[in-house]
Amino acid sequence: MPHYVVGHKIPDSDSICSAIALSYLKTTLGEETVPARLGELSPETLFILDKFGFEQPELKMSYAGESLYIVDHSERTQGPDDIDEATILGIIDHHKLGDITTSTPLECWIRPVGCTNTIIKMMYDFHNVEIPKNIAGAMMCAILSDTVIFKSPTCTTADIKCVEALAEIAGIDDPETLGMEMFKVKSAVEGTPVRDLVLRDFKDFDMNGNLVGIGQLEVIDLAIFDDIKADLEADIAKLKAEGNRHTVLLLLTDIMKEGSEMLVVSDSADITERAYGKATSEGKVWLDGVLSRKKQVVPPLQEAFA
Amino acid sequence: MPHYVVGHKIPDSDSICSAIALSYLKTTLGEETVPARLGELSPETLFILDKFGFEQPELKMSYAGESLYIVDHSERTQGPDDIDEATILGIIDHHKLGDITTSTPLECWIRPVGCTNTIIKMMYDFHNVEIPKNIAGAMMCAILSDTVIFKSPTCTTADIKCVEALAEIAGIDDPETLGMEMFKVKSAVEGTPVRDLVLRDFKDFDMNGNLVGIGQLEVIDLAIFDDIKADLEADIAKLKAEGNRHTVLLLLTDIMKEGSEMLVVSDSADITERAYGKATSEGKVWLDGVLSRKKQVVPPLQEAFA
Ligand SMILES: [Mn+2]
Ligand SMILES: [Mn+2]
Repeated sequence: MPHYVVGHKIPDSDSICSAIALSYLKTTLGEETVPARLGELSPETLFILDKFGFEQPELKMSYAGESLYIVDHSERTQGPDDIDEATILGIIDHHKLGDITTSTPLECWIRPVGCTNTIIKMMYDFHNVEIPKNIAGAMMCAILSDTVIFKSPTCTTADIKCVEALAEIAGIDDPETLGMEMFKVKSAVEGTPVRDLVLRDFKDFDMNGNLVGIGQLEVIDLAIFDDIKADLEADIAKLKAEGNRHTVLLLLTDIMKEGSEMLVVSDSADITERAYGKATSEGKVWLDGVLSRKKQVVPPLQEAFA
Repeated sequence: MPHYVVGHKIPDSDSICSAIALSYLKTTLGEETVPARLGELSPETLFILDKFGFEQPELKMSYAGESLYIVDHSERTQGPDDIDEATILGIIDHHKLGDITTSTPLECWIRPVGCTNTIIKMMYDFHNVEIPKNIAGAMMCAILSDTVIFKSPTCTTADIKCVEALAEIAGIDDPETLGMEMFKVKSAVEGTPVRDLVLRDFKDFDMNGNLVGIGQLEVIDLAIFDDIKADLEADIAKLKAEGNRHTVLLLLTDIMKEGSEMLVVSDSADITERAYGKATSEGKVWLDGVLSRKKQVVPPLQEAFA
């Protein structure tokens, strides 16, 4: 029975490319391991898989009785629903430490860097395993995505150096141009149902007993949302009610202007005031310089709930 | 303000030597870091510090407002009581993943090996930092202690190779002889108050909402306990009542015979039957081949409580 590698629900490019890269490394080291996913892929991720010639990883929701590696998170709410019936062999991640626990020793590579794939590159180096060209390309794109082409405050020197090294292996001369191409794909919203947009990069967090959902859409120009903003607002209100959530936030991130408009529905009217020092006006607030959910949105919110 | 490195309550040699080794590495890398401890040291640890010329790390119980690295565990019950008011910068450990969480990204090096110091050696190698002779000696002793001189089922090839490399750096020709010397110090019980013996290597675990305390005494001959076994049994019963614990286990481990006598007081009379397939007789049971609390005692018990 092979082992699995799986990222979070509503997978992003880092979750998928990590699963592909780690399963190749483990298999090469003699442990048969296959990548899997917990949901449908975004246009951006499909663009990466297509570009480097990968199939979509297997869609697999249940892991009872299986052994698996978790990538790109360590939160129970973001993992498989039956995670308690699985054996967790390891966690590779770059977020805050979540509430997953195990009953046996395991392998964790968690680092405060911009992307899980930067850590997986360290694992390849540690084990002295050569990275195939196409895997290097996919890993590189995941880092460009997670770091918003190095603009995010989560980006570290390790991420930049890693992209340079992976670009060389993949034979890509200009990673940043490929990054912009990728973000143009990501920015396309026309023809996509509103709910699909809201859930495209959406994560639930347990904040001191309150369920808080936070979505993010990164685009190269916020004007893209002018016609659908009212629909997005209506839909996150629905999502809040359906999931019995305390709060739902949707970040509309302008990667060129380097800031985010936050759409807010919450049981606490003053939640953004308390977390970010800025009140909402008609359920919206512009947060200048805010690009990173992980580093700039989640920690102050967690403080506000503490 | 320096950062701290601290292991678990009732520190063992691994917790103390890890704190010394990691704080030296971090300081060398430009981050001023000092080792600390959450309790009194055992004769074994004092023997190691004396042998390699170290002072005892600072006794420091409160970490509110401080930044720290946690070594040799990831459990809230085993950390500082005010851990929620501290910033956890990282965790280096070789146990199951516990319930510590953070609100910010961090650095975790967790591996299924026999000793935290084996992982810290990997960190030195990763950063290309030379290990001083005396630190190498202390790290080596911690690995010999945690792996019961390579006899424990938790011992891996990585631990054995690490001891070889550290012995070379420390200029020690015969690590196993030094290991036996250390275990002779550890075996001395005469003149030590019974409660001190019970608590010498004692850890509390939260098992599905039940507080379970497990102590372990490793000796080179169980006959050492003949005269005091009744006192030990009476004392763990007291400890159970004082701490409102569901169960207290005390492992009397014979490292030469390679097995443990387990002393048991529990709210569930059949707990060892369910966890280890062997009932107690007069509150005691011999478990052949059982040397490791982490690998052989805790996981089956956790299953029994699940
Ligand atoms: Mn990521
Ligand atoms: Mn240890």
